[in-house]
Amino acid sequence: MNINTIELIHGEGGKHTQKLIEDIFYKNFKNDVLIQNTDSALVNLPEGKIAFTTDSFVVNPIFFKGGDIGKLAISGTINDLTACGAEPVCLSVAFIIEEGFPMEDLIKIVTSMKETCEKANVNIVTGDTKVVPKGKVDKIFINTTGMGVVNEYEPKRIICGDKVIVTGTIGEHGTAIAVDRYNLKVKGNIESDCEPLNYLLNYLKNYYKHIKFMRDPTRGGVAQVLNEISKQCDLGIHIFEKNIPIREEVKAINEMLGINPLYLACEGRMIIVVDKEVYIDILDGLVRECNCKARVIGEFTSEYEFVYIENDFGGKRVLGELDTQILPRIC
Amino acid sequence: MNINTIELIHGEGGKHTQKLIEDIFYKNFKNDVLIQNTDSALVNLPEGKIAFTTDSFVVNPIFFKGGDIGKLAISGTINDLTACGAEPVCLSVAFIIEEGFPMEDLIKIVTSMKETCEKANVNIVTGDTKVVPKGKVDKIFINTTGMGVVNEYEPKRIICGDKVIVTGTIGEHGTAIAVDRYNLKVKGNIESDCEPLNYLLNYLKNYYKHIKFMRDPTRGGVAQVLNEISKQCDLGIHIFEKNIPIREEVKAINEMLGINPLYLACEGRMIIVVDKEVYIDILDGLVRECNCKARVIGEFTSEYEFVYIENDFGGKRVLGELDTQILPRIC
Repeated sequence: MNINTIELIHGEGGKHTQKLIEDIFYKNFKNDVLIQNTDSALVNLPEGKIAFTTDSFVVNPIFFKGGDIGKLAISGTINDLTACGAEPVCLSVAFIIEEGFPMEDLIKIVTSMKETCEKANVNIVTGDTKVVPKGKVDKIFINTTGMGVVNEYEPKRIICGDKVIVTGTIGEHGTAIAVDRYNLKVKGNIESDCEPLNYLLNYLKNYYKHIKFMRDPTRGGVAQVLNEISKQCDLGIHIFEKNIPIREEVKAINEMLGINPLYLACEGRMIIVVDKEVYIDILDGLVRECNCKARVIGEFTSEYEFVYIENDFGGKRVLGELDTQILPRIC
Repeated sequence: MNINTIELIHGEGGKHTQKLIEDIFYKNFKNDVLIQNTDSALVNLPEGKIAFTTDSFVVNPIFFKGGDIGKLAISGTINDLTACGAEPVCLSVAFIIEEGFPMEDLIKIVTSMKETCEKANVNIVTGDTKVVPKGKVDKIFINTTGMGVVNEYEPKRIICGDKVIVTGTIGEHGTAIAVDRYNLKVKGNIESDCEPLNYLLNYLKNYYKHIKFMRDPTRGGVAQVLNEISKQCDLGIHIFEKNIPIREEVKAINEMLGINPLYLACEGRMIIVVDKEVYIDILDGLVRECNCKARVIGEFTSEYEFVYIENDFGGKRVLGELDTQILPRIC
C-alpha cells in the first residue's frame, strides 16, 4: 500500500478509512460535534426557519489562482445560505476521490477548507469519503451541504425603480479558471474572487426591510441571475454598461476568448436588489464598512420585459439567458 | 443538441439547466419547499436536536437487482438518520452526471428516488446538478444529505450481557452488486436489501430507554460495525454463527467469491444493541409488528476485548476489522 496516495482500501469503510478520517479530516476540521463519530451529526439549532442547501464541486483545475476546489466548496455553500439571509450554522462535506490521488494534494485541499471555515466561522460537522478506481472520476469531487438560520430577511416584491447592486468586480472566478485551464500567458494578476460572503449579513441585516432579493451569480454569471429575476417579477432590467465593475485584465482576456464576462461565474459576489429610496445608504455602507467594490449596475423598469444593457454611447442590446456552452466545470 | 442524452449545456446554469430541473426534478420531487427555487430551501423545523448526515453514492452498476443508485441514495441517508433515532425531515440531492448519459436512465433513477421518498414519507427540498465531460465521471454519482429530528433517543453505555440484534438477513446488497457487476450465473433470486428503515422507529421508540446503540452495517458490513462498537465500549462481543440470519444463496455465492459476507454491505438492515432485560420483547416486536427477519446474533462480554465468532461446533475465531479490499463501489 502506497502511503503517499489515496487507495481503494481508504474507501472500504474499514480501519484504513477510519485512519484517513482521523488523521486528515478530524485533525483539520476538529470540533465537538464532528468527533462524536455518529452516523449523523447531532446539532442544536435555534428555533425558527432553517435554510438548507447543497452543491457539488467538480471544478477543473482543482488548484487555481486565488483558490482551490476546497475553498470553493466551502464558499459556494456558505454563499447560497447568505443569499437567503441565513447565518450558516454547519456544513457537511462529502469527498469522491480517484484512486492514486496524491495525499499531499488532499491535505492541501483540506487545509484550505479548514481556513475558509475559520474565516466564515462555520464548522464541518459530518462527512463522507468515497474512493473510486482510477479513471472513474477526475481527481476529486466535493459536495458541501449547509444549514443556516434565517434571521428576519425575506424576499419582497420588486417594483419599477428598484436598484441592482453587485458587491464587487465581476467575472474573476471564471476568468481565473480559464487562464489556468488553458494555460494562457497573460499579464496582470487574475485571481478567483471565491470567498465566503456571510460576513456581509452583519451589515446588511440593518437593511433587511429594504432588501428585496439576493443571489450569488455563480454558473451563468450576472446575466443569468438578472434574467431569472426579471422573469420572476415580470419587469425589465436596464443595465448601464459603464457602471459594471470589471477589471481591465478580465475584460481583455475575455475579449481574447470571445466570452462575455457577464455570463462568467463569480464565487465571491452577491447581486442585491434594493429599494430605490435607500440604495445610496446601502451602497455606501457596502463600500465603506464592508470594503466592497460595490456598484449600482442598473434598475428595474416596465419599459421592456427583459434584461437589456445600455452602452456608453446610448446603444441598447438585449442581455438574454445563457444559451450556449462557455466553460464547463467552472465550479 | 441530442435530446435523448444529458449534455454539458445542462450543467451550465442557463435555460437548459432550468428546463432539466423543471421537466425532470421538479416534476418528480414536487413539493412546496422545493419549487420555491431559492438558493437554499427554507424549512420549518420543530425545536430540538437535529441530526444531519451526508453520503455520496458511486455504486457500480447503477442498476442492480432490487434497486438502483437512486433508491440506494435515498435509503442510505434515511438509514443514517434512523440510526440516530431521528425522524427524517427532508433531503437534499446533488447529481454529478457524465456527458452523454441517457435521459431515459436519469428518469428511471429519479422515478425510483421519488418512489423511495414516498415510501419513507420524506421530501427532497433542494438540489444541485453538475454535468462533466465524457470520461471524467463514471455515468452518475449522487449525494444525498438529510436532516432529521431526534426524538428522545440517545446512545447509552453498553455493559456485559447486552444483546446484539440484526434486523434481517445479511450481505444481500453486497452480493447483489457482485452478481450484477461480474455477471455471475447463479441460481436463486439474489436482490439488494436496500430500503429506507425509518418505519422501524415507530416501533422502536417504545423501547428507546432500553436501546443502547444503532447503526446500519453498510461499508464494512456487520463485522466492521461490531468492531467499532467493541472498541468504543471496551468490551468483547461474542457472536454465535448459527444465529446469523443469512440466505443459503448468499452463503454459496460468497464462498465461490471467497468473501466473508459478514464484511459485505447491507443497505436495509440495522444493528441494534439492547438491554439484556428486554431483548426478547424487542426482538418479538421486530419480527411480529415490523415483519423483520430479526435475530439476536450475539452479546457483549468482558471475557475478551475483541469480536469473536463461535461456530456450531464450539470453535471460536476472531472477527477483526476490515483490513483488505473486497468490493469497491458497493454504495
